[in-house]
Parts: sequence; C-alpha cells; structure tokens
Amino acid sequence: MRFQRKHILGLGELSAEEIKLILDTAESMKEVSERDVKKVPALKGVTVVNLFFEPSTRTRSSFEIAEKRLSADVLNFTPAQSSVVKGETLLDTARNLEAMGASVIVIRHSMSGAPWLLARELSASIINAGDGSHEHPSQALLDLFTVREIKKEIRGLKVLIVGDIAHSRVARSNIWGFVKLGAEVRLVGPPTMIPRDIEKLDVSVFYNLEEAIRDVDVVMMLRIQKERQESGLFPSLREYSKFYGLTRDKLKLAKDDVIVMHPGPINRGIELSSEVADDVHSVILDQVANGIAVRMAMLYLVASAGGTE
Amino acid sequence: MRFQRKHILGLGELSAEEIKLILDTAESMKEVSERDVKKVPALKGVTVVNLFFEPSTRTRSSFEIAEKRLSADVLNFTPAQSSVVKGETLLDTARNLEAMGASVIVIRHSMSGAPWLLARELSASIINAGDGSHEHPSQALLDLFTVREIKKEIRGLKVLIVGDIAHSRVARSNIWGFVKLGAEVRLVGPPTMIPRDIEKLDVSVFYNLEEAIRDVDVVMMLRIQKERQESGLFPSLREYSKFYGLTRDKLKLAKDDVIVMHPGPINRGIELSSEVADDVHSVILDQVANGIAVRMAMLYLVASAGGTE
Amino acid sequence: MRFQRKHILGLGELSAEEIKLILDTAESMKEVSERDVKKVPALKGVTVVNLFFEPSTRTRSSFEIAEKRLSADVLNFTPAQSSVVKGETLLDTARNLEAMGASVIVIRHSMSGAPWLLARELSASIINAGDGSHEHPSQALLDLFTVREIKKEIRGLKVLIVGDIAHSRVARSNIWGFVKLGAEVRLVGPPTMIPRDIEKLDVSVFYNLEEAIRDVDVVMMLRIQKERQESGLFPSLREYSKFYGLTRDKLKLAKDDVIVMHPGPINRGIELSSEVADDVHSVILDQVANGIAVRMAMLYLVASAGGTE
Repeated sequence: MRFQRKHILGLGELSAEEIKLILDTAESMKEVSERDVKKVPALKGVTVVNLFFEPSTRTRSSFEIAEKRLSADVLNFTPAQSSVVKGETLLDTARNLEAMGASVIVIRHSMSGAPWLLARELSASIINAGDGSHEHPSQALLDLFTVREIKKEIRGLKVLIVGDIAHSRVARSNIWGFVKLGAEVRLVGPPTMIPRDIEKLDVSVFYNLEEAIRDVDVVMMLRIQKERQESGLFPSLREYSKFYGLTRDKLKLAKDDVIVMHPGPINRGIELSSEVADDVHSVILDQVANGIAVRMAMLYLVASAGGTE
Repeated sequence: MRFQRKHILGLGELSAEEIKLILDTAESMKEVSERDVKKVPALKGVTVVNLFFEPSTRTRSSFEIAEKRLSADVLNFTPAQSSVVKGETLLDTARNLEAMGASVIVIRHSMSGAPWLLARELSASIINAGDGSHEHPSQALLDLFTVREIKKEIRGLKVLIVGDIAHSRVARSNIWGFVKLGAEVRLVGPPTMIPRDIEKLDVSVFYNLEEAIRDVDVVMMLRIQKERQESGLFPSLREYSKFYGLTRDKLKLAKDDVIVMHPGPINRGIELSSEVADDVHSVILDQVANGIAVRMAMLYLVASAGGTE
Repeated sequence: MRFQRKHILGLGELSAEEIKLILDTAESMKEVSERDVKKVPALKGVTVVNLFFEPSTRTRSSFEIAEKRLSADVLNFTPAQSSVVKGETLLDTARNLEAMGASVIVIRHSMSGAPWLLARELSASIINAGDGSHEHPSQALLDLFTVREIKKEIRGLKVLIVGDIAHSRVARSNIWGFVKLGAEVRLVGPPTMIPRDIEKLDVSVFYNLEEAIRDVDVVMMLRIQKERQESGLFPSLREYSKFYGLTRDKLKLAKDDVIVMHPGPINRGIELSSEVADDVHSVILDQVANGIAVRMAMLYLVASAGGTE
C-alpha cells in the first residue's frame, strides 16, 4: 500500500490501513533517531513552514526537530512578529507562504476547521497540528504508536480517556484512532465535560473514575485547562482533582501492566499526582520521544504524496 | 559586467545596468526554485543575520527562505528578545553581530538611513529590507522582475502607482527603478499623500484615479496604513476607498492586458476589491514567488562582491 | 588529556587543566572561523536546544552561530511562546526537550543553580549560559581566551574587575578562572557592591578606582544595571560614573599596554566613556569574536564526552 493523501488533517477521515501505514513508517523513522548521525536527506531543499497561531512548546518544537532530521528548510511563522498584526486573513498569509515556496504547512489554529480551509484552497501539503477543540492528529498518532509499541496489538485493548472530553482535540482524535484500530474506548469526566451523543462514536461513558478504570490497559489523562474553571464547568480544581485526578490508589484498580499517558504539559497534583507522573506505569516521556518519529513519518508521507501528484 | 557593490541599499543609487544585472541573476536563481532539490551551496558557511526592528511576515520570511536555499547559516535577530531592551545602540548591536561572524546583515528599521549608517561603519555587507519611508529595494526589484517577466521589456510601459506615495518606501524605490529602466511613471492619490516636488523625479502626478489609469500597462496599489487615518491625512477609509480603491470598473479603463500589483498584505475592500485581488490581472502571488529569486540574487551578489574586496 | 565532563556548569568546579584544554580547543575552532567555508560537520545530526528564560542578544546569538558552524540542528526555545505560559515546571520542560532528542541543552535562567538541577536529573549535556548572579562560564572562558591570545600568558597578570561585583555572574566566573590560571585579581566598586568575605577567593578589594587601576594589565568593566539604582545600592548613575566609570585619564594609571574588556552591552557614558570603548586599548569586539570559537569548543567537548559515556 502507498500513502495517497497529500494532507493529514484528522483521524476522523483516515482509514485503519492509512493509520497503520503511518505507524509503520514511524517505526523506520525511529530507527533514524537511534543512529549516530540522526539525520536523513529525505526533505532536503523542501521548505516546511510551522504556522502556529497558538503558543506551544511540545508540538512546535517536536515538528521542528522532525523537520530538521529530514533535512528540510524550516521556517517558523509566529503571529506576534507578523502581518497578522496588520490584519491579514489566514488564507492570504498561507497563500503567501505557499508562493514563497512552502511545500508543507504545519498549522495550529484556534479555529476548528482551519487546516481544511487551507487544504482546499492551497496546493501545498497541510498538516494539522491542532485546530480548536476539533482534532490533533499528530498527538493521537504518537499515542497509538506508543501503545502499539508497548502492547504490540491495539485490537481488544481497554483504553480509558479521563477529563474534559468536550473541549479536547486530543480526546477527539484519539477516540477516532483507537476505535478504528479495534480498541474498546471508555470516557470518564464530570457530566459538563462529556459531549452529548458521544456514544455514537462507539465509546462508553462513565462519570465515576474508580468504576471506569477497572481492568483497563491504558489510562489517558487529559490536561485540565485552569482557565475553564471560571466558566463554571467544574466547581474547583480541588474538587476536580479529588474525583478525576489519578492517584496510585485509583491506578491499582486497572490492570497490573496498565500504562499511563498524558499529552503534556502536566498539571502536577491536579489531573495527575506527581508520584503517578513519574512511576513505572507512566509512558509520558516515551510519548514525547515517539512524537519525533511519528511527525517525521507524517511529513515524509505527505511530502512524497504531494510530489507525485 | 560584474557586480561591484558590497551593499544593496536603495534603487536611488543603483544604475540601470546594475539593476538589470540583479534581475538577470534572479532569473538563474528562479531556476533553482524550480528544481527537485531547491538548494544550492553558494553561501555555505556564510552567516546571514536578519536584523528586523519592525514586524514583517513577507519580507523577513522571504529573505529567510532565500538564505536557506543558498545554504547560508541564518540568524534571526528580533529586538523584543534582545539587548535592545537593555538600551544598546543600533550600531553597537550591529557591530557585535559582525564580530560574531555575520558576513551579511539584512536590516529593517523605522529610521530612514539606518542601512547607510551600518554600511559606512561596518565591513559586513548590508542589505536594506526597508528603512522608514525611504527605500525598500528588494520589493522594487521583485516588482521590476515580475513586470519584466510578463511584459518582456520595461522601457515604454505606462506604470501607475496608487495611494499614499508620501509615506511609502515601496513607491519611492519603484519610482527610481521604473524611471531608470525607461518606463513612464504616473502617481495618483489624495493631495495630502503626494509629496511636493515629486515631479522632479520625472513622474506625472494625478489626483483622479479614473483619469490616471487610462491606458496603463501596470497598476501598482499601495497598502493603506489604517493607523494614518487618525492623523487627518484622509477623511475616512470609506471615502478613500471610494476615490482611490481599485475595482473592476475602474480597471476596465486601463489596457486590456494590464497587470495589478500589490506589495501585501492586502486590505481587502479598501485599496483593492476582493474580486480584483483574485482575478486574472492580479500578479500579487507572482510577486511573492519572485521575491525569493530576487532576494537570492541580492544575497549572492553582495556576498560575492564582499568576498573579493 | 581528554575532556571528561559531560557538562560545563561553572568555572568554580573546573580545574586549571580543564580550562586550558577548553582554551586550546577554542584555538582550533577559531581557525575554522577563518576558513572560506566556516563550517565543520562535528555536530551533524546532533540536536542542541537553546533554553533561554532571560532575554539576551549576544549570548544566545553567539551560541546559535557556534552551533550552526558545527552543523548541529538548533532549536531555540523562548519561554514567551511556550508551555511556560501554561505553568510547566523547568524540569518537565527540560525533560521533554531531552525526550525529543536534545543531546545538549544550553540554559540561561534567573535562578542560581538551575543548570546544576538539569545536569543532575537529565542525561543530556548541559551548558550554563548564565544562572542568576552565580556563574556565566562561557563569558569567563572567552575573556580568558582573549587575554591569553593577547598577553600570551595569564600567570602573573594583574587583572582588575570594576563595578557591581556582588550581582555579577560575569565577575564571579572570571574570578575563579583568572585565579586558577595564576593571575592576581583585584576588585573595585562601591562598598554596597562588593560581597562580604570575597577575599577568601584570593582576590584583593579596593574602593577607589584610581588606586586599584595602578599597573594593571587588564581592566574588566562590568555593566551597570540601571534597574538597580532604585534599590539604593548607589546614589545615582552620575555619582557612580564619576567614581567608577572608566575614562582615558584613569586608564593612564594602568600599564601602557593595558587592555579594556566589557561583557556588553555597553552603557556608553556610564561605566565606560565612549572614547575608551572605541580606543586602541579596547578589546571588546575581540571578546565577541572569540565567543564563537570558545562556545564551539564548549559544545564540541561536552558533546564528545557525552557521546562516549
């Protein structure tokens, strides 16, 4: 099978086979990161633009390192230093970057759907690095990669996602991915944080963490947005932490070889106790490390598909 | 002919022959951008610093991509993260960058004349990326390149520049360039936006767009600075747009094969209607694309001249 | 002798032999900067992160140029665009950068000791680019390099450091370095700016510049922090400048071949008169130029040591 897509926008539209192809490609890329010289000339002379309208350490840096390991020419576009101040539209900005020779645009934007808009209007390859509370495909792909690497097979695993499901693009992309690859997905969080009708995506919903966590293979904690507290979605951080924070005691209810995941950055002592964040079940830093290989694979695949159109 | 200058500071001081040499070199550079591997080792091991004291998407990004295509080592200096906070003078900052090994400094500064100051005091090559309301040579050179590419010959063309001529470094550099290469240059704008005595530069001045646009080959729209409105230079954006905004109807008065240019970013619906910005006469994205080749040529020529001094 | 350290954190812990080895390596690196192609593949495929929590032109840019001359993949992490906004701890940020493949982390932080914390917890190589008012080893090493290059031998030289010794990481690192290499170190400044018990470091303390400067070979001026004025450490800039600012007249009291150093950026007319900053005794721009070679040496040595552990 060859990867036919010019863009990677979301897990919602990728088939199980396409997802597996990305993960298999990431395995080869991981091998590059273990070499003495961690660099391949795959994207030499290809200009990749990181177009980030929201602040980010992990995702932008991870893409940037991945791009440089592929020998791409990297341009970071950060709105504060840019024409956005002058009121230019997103589309004009992107068209200009394309005219300057950008072959791949990695975009993060607060507006759900922004990457699809660019994919429709531009001829460059678009990678979604997070759009609103919609999708975050590179995060879900690195999560799938990490789980597959440790558990060998995703089919049949019990995967629990904990927290503010309604506002999480990480949750949304992971639901698509794990369900497509045959896992049983459970969600848990306060009722205000679970979207209506989410069961249609073939997941089961819980409101009690102790109950939801029984026998699961994977616990994926979401980051709580402290800013959300004022909006009345939950009474207090302390209250939230008491019911939905992951502690060692609650973790004992899961399978013995359960793994704990988090997309970072962690709020220690809120959604995750510090001892859980740092203990043997935690694969949080493996996720970060695998992010490089997965993003290298995404970049490589869209650039190759784009080149042969 | 060999390019003898170590700096490119403004079109005012370049001869017609020098301008043509830059445009010819840019043609070779454009060929690089059309290769599979869009990269040449011309500036390998050469450190180029982008010293931008004003925000910019297009210009800085365009220079950065051009530099990377020439394999230069690129350093972006952005004042907010810098010693400028600590009150260091422009000259000390530049001297330090030179001492660190910068061979070429690309500078944008709000103060007219800043690039000349550096050229006089430093031994690095200086490229002016826009100084105050004085000159913007890389923009004018890419405009000349774009017109020459489409119209084959600049001599004898009728070129109309529309808008706030008085405060526009783009206008000033383009006037020098088009006049030197033998075009007939017309200017149009509200009387408050036309500098006194500008006719001395061998241009004709109009105050009515419908009259000025008749039979022209090229319409170059300037960006209106919304901030200027408060200063009383023009009554309102709506008023300005009504008299000096370019619409399809007004464009019909020009030649049939007229081209419409804009240095970007566009204020859609103000100086340019959206339909004109996106229609077949518009070469705005060609300008952006040609900017890479033209800046590669500028960098290459000054670095070569600087190296043989 | 081989360099055994994986980190360079401060001059306080380096032996005289280790310091000399760094300076010798920097001599070879300086030769690279004088070649036509100023680049070696020593760190090809090695990811170096510049993790700067405080603004800086000279130091960050100097490290960045040094890294690129060694062909490293460089990632600049600037807190404003980052997860620091989201309240992530320093250690989590650094661990994430390491998980992404950073082999060397160059850190500047307002907290004294921060680089030691990272060195203890991470397996990446750590280079201290300035921590609080504690150490600034790359600055002291480039100062030692510059003095050794001009004076041939450091042993026996009389070196005077002038200014706010108490709050200066530059002073602290230089005291360690010059004393270890056998120079006689003198300090001068207002009593409020000289730390108690500093004589224990084998230096002599003066409060009068005219007296302290007699017969010295090297005068190292410290930058005065204008912000400190409000704290009551000194009465006024004018007062400070009168007593501790370096002028030509005062400089005449030193040896005839005295050299004047400053870590930059200079407050012209405050700690240094403009004529002294620009005269023949000043080696301030040599310091900046040597910074590249010294930082290349530091990066090369820790990356080599780290690779063979």
